[in-house]
Amino acid sequence: MTAKKLLILPGDGIGQEVMVQVRRIIDWMAKKRNIHFEVSEGLIGGSAYDVHGTPLADETLADAMAADAVLLGAVGGPKWDDLPFEVKPERGLLKIRKEMGLFANLRPAVVFDALADASTLKTEVVSGLDIMIVRELTGGLYFGQPRGIETLPNGERKGVNTLTYTTSEIVRIGRAAFDLARKRNKRLCSVDKANVLECTVLWREEMIKLQQTEYPDIELSHMYVDNAAMQLVRNPKQFDVMVTENMFGDILSDCAAMLTGSLGMLPSASLGAADANGNRKALYEPVHGSAPDIQGKDIANPLATILSFAMCLKYSFNMDHEAEMIETAVKNVLKGGLRTADIMAPGKAKVSTSVMGESIVREL
Amino acid sequence: MTAKKLLILPGDGIGQEVMVQVRRIIDWMAKKRNIHFEVSEGLIGGSAYDVHGTPLADETLADAMAADAVLLGAVGGPKWDDLPFEVKPERGLLKIRKEMGLFANLRPAVVFDALADASTLKTEVVSGLDIMIVRELTGGLYFGQPRGIETLPNGERKGVNTLTYTTSEIVRIGRAAFDLARKRNKRLCSVDKANVLECTVLWREEMIKLQQTEYPDIELSHMYVDNAAMQLVRNPKQFDVMVTENMFGDILSDCAAMLTGSLGMLPSASLGAADANGNRKALYEPVHGSAPDIQGKDIANPLATILSFAMCLKYSFNMDHEAEMIETAVKNVLKGGLRTADIMAPGKAKVSTSVMGESIVREL
Ligand SMILES: CC(C)[C@H](C(=O)O)[C@@H](O)C(=O)O
Ligand SMILES: CC(C)[C@H](C(=O)O)[C@@H](O)C(=O)O
Repeated sequence: MTAKKLLILPGDGIGQEVMVQVRRIIDWMAKKRNIHFEVSEGLIGGSAYDVHGTPLADETLADAMAADAVLLGAVGGPKWDDLPFEVKPERGLLKIRKEMGLFANLRPAVVFDALADASTLKTEVVSGLDIMIVRELTGGLYFGQPRGIETLPNGERKGVNTLTYTTSEIVRIGRAAFDLARKRNKRLCSVDKANVLECTVLWREEMIKLQQTEYPDIELSHMYVDNAAMQLVRNPKQFDVMVTENMFGDILSDCAAMLTGSLGMLPSASLGAADANGNRKALYEPVHGSAPDIQGKDIANPLATILSFAMCLKYSFNMDHEAEMIETAVKNVLKGGLRTADIMAPGKAKVSTSVMGESIVREL
Repeated sequence: MTAKKLLILPGDGIGQEVMVQVRRIIDWMAKKRNIHFEVSEGLIGGSAYDVHGTPLADETLADAMAADAVLLGAVGGPKWDDLPFEVKPERGLLKIRKEMGLFANLRPAVVFDALADASTLKTEVVSGLDIMIVRELTGGLYFGQPRGIETLPNGERKGVNTLTYTTSEIVRIGRAAFDLARKRNKRLCSVDKANVLECTVLWREEMIKLQQTEYPDIELSHMYVDNAAMQLVRNPKQFDVMVTENMFGDILSDCAAMLTGSLGMLPSASLGAADANGNRKALYEPVHGSAPDIQGKDIANPLATILSFAMCLKYSFNMDHEAEMIETAVKNVLKGGLRTADIMAPGKAKVSTSVMGESIVREL
């Protein structure tokens, strides 16, 4: 078996330092389990702009397309806030998602037993929470045409973005979500605003058809996006898998992430379509941002990125066993009382980014 | 002084029964304070469809345009779920907002001291919460053209909605929000997605200009909508006034409402532009929906609608004193331990819709 190609894109802010901790795990896998990856590294976001004048250089994109999986840190920071829209760090992220065809963004919102108190919600409301939000990632309001700002004849300016989906885009994200629900508790909640937006009327119709024709074993429900935001706060445990439009998914998944109280713990996966050999392009990244305010201080929480790597092992490399080993190591280290600053609590031991990384390897 | 014209539109579900409680207060004002309104009543939503075949008849709209203020219950219910998109109950609500030009939707999220425990959030996170979300209500993704579902040459279907704002639409909602912030704690947070959506790049630019030219005394901050959803859960008390696009406002205001744990308590106001005499068209409605499941059981919470009437007295009729009397009566009745089912807690006295209404009048 040839070694799998893994492209690491640390990005900006704390991206670099959390990725160093993943490298430790990769080294451990080589030494202790004789599993070898062909690892290369590249630039994305502001750090790519500083070198190439663009947040995603063509070579980097080519490397990403050739890789078996991409592991990304985070992009953005005040240094690049005043750049023109087209070369802002975020454009690099949006471009790599779009060009790689990563239409299915999987965002688990999981509460770790050891961290249930970290939530601003009452412990009984969130303890044991385990939901999966499937966000459409290459369509919807983020990518629809026409878009832009124009000046009208009367001198006023007008801004436009377009929310649009075709049947096949909806069916493809729908299948990804139904498949996931099948592996979990067989309940899928599709979130739309079908009482107001025609685009999501189509979304709902296609989800219903899909359930009837291909997933009769999955219980499908529908919820308006405003109600979904409420229900996440009121009783998040009512959900198993949720599927929704790109912009809605951006908002709801961040809301769900914050319910757990420990954003620094949450990984995500972005997957493309399977090719003839069953391989899919994939990118893994923590849900948290680049946190430029704590960059270089060795206090960032590396666990979301480490867990993103575990997702990578599971979804891209079929290494369920190793993925679970990492997840268990994370749980045990938390149980042992180690905490980075963001999840620190009375009576626990505060550790640095690197000590947390080392501790995970030691636990492994 | 001629009597102010008040149009009452109970709508569907529990709308009718909660409005009966407002009538008690109107009667009390006539008897005890010699304040008389010219009250008329009309149909909207499903109940209008049942009679007129449309969720908002032209006569009703004409009555609304002629009124000094409109008080609305709620619309919708399973009975009308299968109606065509164009005559669904919600279209009546959207039409009356649009035709009356009610571009500024004010949604307070307030935690009543007596109810701080009702939230799913930890009491210290929400106690004393008092934020105001200003949602743009007649533009944005809800109303942009083109919209609809078309069939493509290849047989696929495609759904489209358009997010669009012009400079003047942004400035007008901006002023409404800045004015409110000036009367409160002088802090305005404008919520957008300017790192992705050009339409909201324009939004942000116009908000910045407005602050610089007309509101230098107000502190303006900006937040991406995904982060805003997180921050509402993490630390809602950081906010004073928030202003945002129609769809974002729909989601965030419902999220904020649920933070309070007592949706049945929250009123809202939708205001138009001031005319030459300083009068503005206005509609007041509770934030909660029509709750068809509890319709007719005399258990719905009438307080959100009663507080909407108080907002009406304040914003449309300059009766600040009477508005405060009602607000104080609500607080006192809660302090006295009376609760409708939705906000019931151990050790309190559960009362019906009508007993709650009577108790408010008695307290007045
Ligand atoms: C950085 C930004 C463009 C991005 C998004 O909006 O998709 C981020 O918020 C996310 O959710 O991954
Ligand atoms: C009923 C629906 C059309 C409406 C909206 O989306 O505006 C409601 O959710 C609201 O927030 O008032």
